Amino acid sequence: MPTIKYYLREGLLPAGELTSPNQASYGDAHERRLRLVRALLEVGGLSVAAIGEVLAAVDDGDGPVHDLLGAAATRLVPEYGAGGASGDDGGSAGASGSGGAADAETVLARERVARLIEDRGWRIASGNKAAEALVAALASLGRVGHGGFVELLDDYAEAAERVGRIDLDYVARRVAREDLVESVVVGTVLGDAVFAALRRMAQVDASARTFGEEAPTA
Amino acid sequence: MPTIKYYLREGLLPAGELTSPNQASYGDAHERRLRLVRALLEVGGLSVAAIGEVLAAVDDGDGPVHDLLGAAATRLVPEYGAGGASGDDGGSAGASGSGGAADAETVLARERVARLIEDRGWRIASGNKAAEALVAALASLGRVGHGGFVELLDDYAEAAERVGRIDLDYVARRVAREDLVESVVVGTVLGDAVFAALRRMAQVDASARTFGEEAPTA
Repeated sequence: MPTIKYYLREGLLPAGELTSPNQASYGDAHERRLRLVRALLEVGGLSVAAIGEVLAAVDDGDGPVHDLLGAAATRLVPEYGAGGASGDDGGSAGASGSGGAADAETVLARERVARLIEDRGWRIASGNKAAEALVAALASLGRVGHGGFVELLDDYAEAAERVGRIDLDYVARRVAREDLVESVVVGTVLGDAVFAALRRMAQVDASARTFGEEAPTA
Repeated sequence: MPTIKYYLREGLLPAGELTSPNQASYGDAHERRLRLVRALLEVGGLSVAAIGEVLAAVDDGDGPVHDLLGAAATRLVPEYGAGGASGDDGGSAGASGSGGAADAETVLARERVARLIEDRGWRIASGNKAAEALVAALASLGRVGHGGFVELLDDYAEAAERVGRIDLDYVARRVAREDLVESVVVGTVLGDAVFAALRRMAQVDASARTFGEEAPTA
């Protein structure tokens, strides 16, 4: 595990107050920041570079709150999701025709996502990074022969809308601006981990009810 | 991006049928598997090692369906979530008392998760890996001063239960056993990406409604 020195060098922690030429003192704010960095690293699975960007958004306290939240949230979109779809795909491995197939799936997914945004009346711009990540995920599902998954999209969106509102209610209770953005960061990243774990647990339960016997086995 | 040769060497793809001493032919099943590996790698963000384990579960078709699903789902729990909480934490960086604090947070989180499982009547064993990942995430939230997030747990669980049932309904429509486990793998991993993207989009919408002006900005 990286040490405090490493975090300092990477700019994830501000320098402490020098109490002597080779000793620095670290206060409560430092300790809190240190814990935040660790949580994003260990539970959130973010890279050091991504954490640096997110913390910059937390510390950069100008502009309207909605823009600030948008800036933080945008940096929290998983990097593997967006982009890779058409550019990186199909080249080196040379599977026949996957470049063209990728394009068709992406076009289809993009239309589906635009319709979803319109149907739900979500106030987000069409180039939104999360929307792009969704396009990439749906296109990928199509490519692996699970295009039928798209039928679940409305139900998923319904549940996501519920969670998104819960998240914002939690965030809106924060008074201080720095606290507010930090809440978004923590809630978004660790909230993903919380939800993913709960979803697995609910799946195990649903599987037990559908296929299992009385006693729990997994 | 890794090539087919690399996937073959890592055992993620079965060898093709030799048509001459240095040429092999690859059929539809190969191409489908190749696309699955890529999707798990690029959109799912799984490591090559994790994909190897997951595919072993897909290919190992013995035992009751519920156990098979459990085995696949267990391998899909994000690795950073479980474990790290008490062992790895607090040592090298030397933040005062974080070892003890970590333990207290973990104990608290464990109790909360046990209560959640009981309240919802979920049929899962207490040592379940997803439950352990949830404990780690909640403990981590507590450690970064966001213990209040735990208040959202019931609402999150409600939404997760809904998604878990949608997932199982989708899976249960598959007739062939191999298809069924593959659906779980694809649906679980790519479903995380889909849900995370939808949650971000819903947050942006909720933020626009709470803090924003008329025009969408993010």
